[in-house]
Amino acid sequence: MTETTLPRELSAAELADAWWILSQDDRVQGFRLLAPDEAGEFFAGLGVKDQAELILALTPGERRVWLRTLAPDDAADLIQEAPEEARAELLALLDEPTRREVAALLAYAEDVAGGLMDPRFARLRAGMTVDEAIAYLRRQVREHVEFALLYYAYVLDDAQRLVGVLSFRELFAAPGDARVADVMHRDVVAVPEGMDQEAVARLFAEHDVIALPVVDEEGRMKGIVTVDDIVDVVEQEATEDFQKYGGMAALEEPYLRIGFRRMIRKRAGWLSALFLSEMLTASAMGRFEGEIARAVVLALFIPLIISSGGNSGSQASTLVIRAMALGEVRLRDWWRVARRELGAGLALGAILAAIGFLRIVLWQAFGVTDYGAHSLLLAAAVAASLVGVVLWGTLAGSMLPFLLRRVGLDPASASAPLVATLCDVTGIVIYFTVASVVLRGTLL
Amino acid sequence: MTETTLPRELSAAELADAWWILSQDDRVQGFRLLAPDEAGEFFAGLGVKDQAELILALTPGERRVWLRTLAPDDAADLIQEAPEEARAELLALLDEPTRREVAALLAYAEDVAGGLMDPRFARLRAGMTVDEAIAYLRRQVREHVEFALLYYAYVLDDAQRLVGVLSFRELFAAPGDARVADVMHRDVVAVPEGMDQEAVARLFAEHDVIALPVVDEEGRMKGIVTVDDIVDVVEQEATEDFQKYGGMAALEEPYLRIGFRRMIRKRAGWLSALFLSEMLTASAMGRFEGEIARAVVLALFIPLIISSGGNSGSQASTLVIRAMALGEVRLRDWWRVARRELGAGLALGAILAAIGFLRIVLWQAFGVTDYGAHSLLLAAAVAASLVGVVLWGTLAGSMLPFLLRRVGLDPASASAPLVATLCDVTGIVIYFTVASVVLRGTLL
Repeated sequence: MTETTLPRELSAAELADAWWILSQDDRVQGFRLLAPDEAGEFFAGLGVKDQAELILALTPGERRVWLRTLAPDDAADLIQEAPEEARAELLALLDEPTRREVAALLAYAEDVAGGLMDPRFARLRAGMTVDEAIAYLRRQVREHVEFALLYYAYVLDDAQRLVGVLSFRELFAAPGDARVADVMHRDVVAVPEGMDQEAVARLFAEHDVIALPVVDEEGRMKGIVTVDDIVDVVEQEATEDFQKYGGMAALEEPYLRIGFRRMIRKRAGWLSALFLSEMLTASAMGRFEGEIARAVVLALFIPLIISSGGNSGSQASTLVIRAMALGEVRLRDWWRVARRELGAGLALGAILAAIGFLRIVLWQAFGVTDYGAHSLLLAAAVAASLVGVVLWGTLAGSMLPFLLRRVGLDPASASAPLVATLCDVTGIVIYFTVASVVLRGTLL
Repeated sequence: MTETTLPRELSAAELADAWWILSQDDRVQGFRLLAPDEAGEFFAGLGVKDQAELILALTPGERRVWLRTLAPDDAADLIQEAPEEARAELLALLDEPTRREVAALLAYAEDVAGGLMDPRFARLRAGMTVDEAIAYLRRQVREHVEFALLYYAYVLDDAQRLVGVLSFRELFAAPGDARVADVMHRDVVAVPEGMDQEAVARLFAEHDVIALPVVDEEGRMKGIVTVDDIVDVVEQEATEDFQKYGGMAALEEPYLRIGFRRMIRKRAGWLSALFLSEMLTASAMGRFEGEIARAVVLALFIPLIISSGGNSGSQASTLVIRAMALGEVRLRDWWRVARRELGAGLALGAILAAIGFLRIVLWQAFGVTDYGAHSLLLAAAVAASLVGVVLWGTLAGSMLPFLLRRVGLDPASASAPLVATLCDVTGIVIYFTVASVVLRGTLL
């Protein structure tokens, strides 16, 4: 037994606060110290990884209690999170109808509509009167039939096909003897069960609803996705994109929780790949070693010039990746984006060129640095290179996400470091090519 | 009159599809071509900026119709979006009770709970019986009292203070003669009206609810925030963070919609600032001009070394920024993060150092490049510099977000380009310092 430093009385807020830094043992002990009603809410509020870890550390009796507090979709997520060998045992802890529902959900990939949905929705028949419908639903509630969300009622035909939807508000407001078929909405937005969760999130944003029905290929209703699950999806997708964009594999675990070695593996792969690509800069510069030896002053501006390409490229790729994630920009828009970024690259390049030109001329004029007899030509070479490098960076940064998506990869992999690396190598070639034209016969 | 290229019959989906590329005139015409029920849904689905632009381009009669279809919180958002001089006129188009509600909402900042909430919620008294409560709510629905969301009923005391909450499901399931006070939950999670929208989003994620009540300082209930608004908040905050992280001011408008000059202004500011900072690299290198002249081969590895600092720093800052946005890491965790990143920086630096060392030794051995007589010492200098630069990049990238938050700035401003720029200058100093120690008496 390890000695515990936890206080005897614990509130859910205190436990949540300390959660990230507690050991597995302390977590279990802390959880057991909670008042029963607090423990229920605390358990429901945990992330699915934490839920799985916690439940596997409890006794079988406790496991049954807490697993049964979960809705079928959440239970399915938890079981999916548990190691393969523990899954059957966890599934067996559920009561029979829930077990069947959870087993059906486990057949879906986690990140499609079918994996997000809850199969417990309120269903009606089109031929019922409104009075009958209300009485039917109230009876179900009284008989403890669980619904994921008692907000919409879905109208199904004999083949379980979705034919209409009705909010509770509308049901209440309609005359009691009206038929459900006459008051329901027939133009239902439904989600195919295989739809990717990002696309589902976009549907929610477009239609501003709090739940959407999920149907199979024959239009049979399988469950509902509720908007609170979509918040998690949106956060999770944004985190993945953000981490990929930062130049690494998505962590898939909270930063302070992931094991050190796992984290290093996630980061070292991309970092090494970038490093190997960046080695091309040494090769590229090697080809201009003669020029550098003749005019060392040229080397001074290399980091300035190549980083400008990387910075402008990272702006462009950020904009395009995020616009794609939000559905504002699609593959077929590539040409419109390219034209836009062509203009942006020229404008931004011109601004930086002007600053760079002034910098060299002024430093020379005020004697801060001595760039030699040909400082004006040097300034011109730097400025011209900047236009070229920024233009290239902007175009490369904006087009790379399209290219990645076209070949089926995640556009967010067009990361700031990747774009910067691309721009470094080409930046060196552009710079020395421009310099050798502008400075031929003078510095070179 | 401009000639229109729009077809006579138009579906909402077609209009939505073409929306981004239509002129203002074409949008108005397209909107008028929609069937009335489709137009309503289309209008509700537009972003608030588009809603404002569209409504201002319509006739006063049309304006009244469409403005009145909006919930008070959405109407307030739209009016906030309109130019100052148009606001009073728009407000006047609303009916009297809604106008008062909207005016109250306009007093809140857009990005706090008060600015997100809808004041139309279902309210009950604790002393009612369940039967009375249901009859009361049904009567309100029949009398066309609007509710933002008919899912929870909130129990208020005489001073309008929130004392309990009850879902409709619970109301239905309770015996008809029970008192509301006996079946309601008293431990209500309530949002202070001034709470920042990011914090509100975190509360939703923690508690997995579809609505939360908003209260003022005295605990008086002012409205509810619904989870569908939170999806928008989460997406909007992620977009802002992402764009800041890409090294620019947040666009605040869809990429394909924002005017070219506005976009250039948003991008040029940061780009110029980064460029000016990056000029320090030229100054830093200027101090080592002698070393470069003596050993041009040293210059070849500059981009490789400094970019490694930038890349590892961008990974670290990404991780910390995102973890902060999700509430996983707080200010007081800085020391734990620093220790973690110290280890990560050393590990990653060692990996890159090994690759870099091998590259130089192998290229020399197989005659790909000739680095001269001291290639082994050169390789050692590059490897040692890489450890230092990657360690520095990792620490700088992980601590900068803490520093920014500490002084009240957005941690997402610790952008990939900013971190890269920081690392470029220090990278050069580290590299040449290490090189001058290792290579003294041989190359230098």
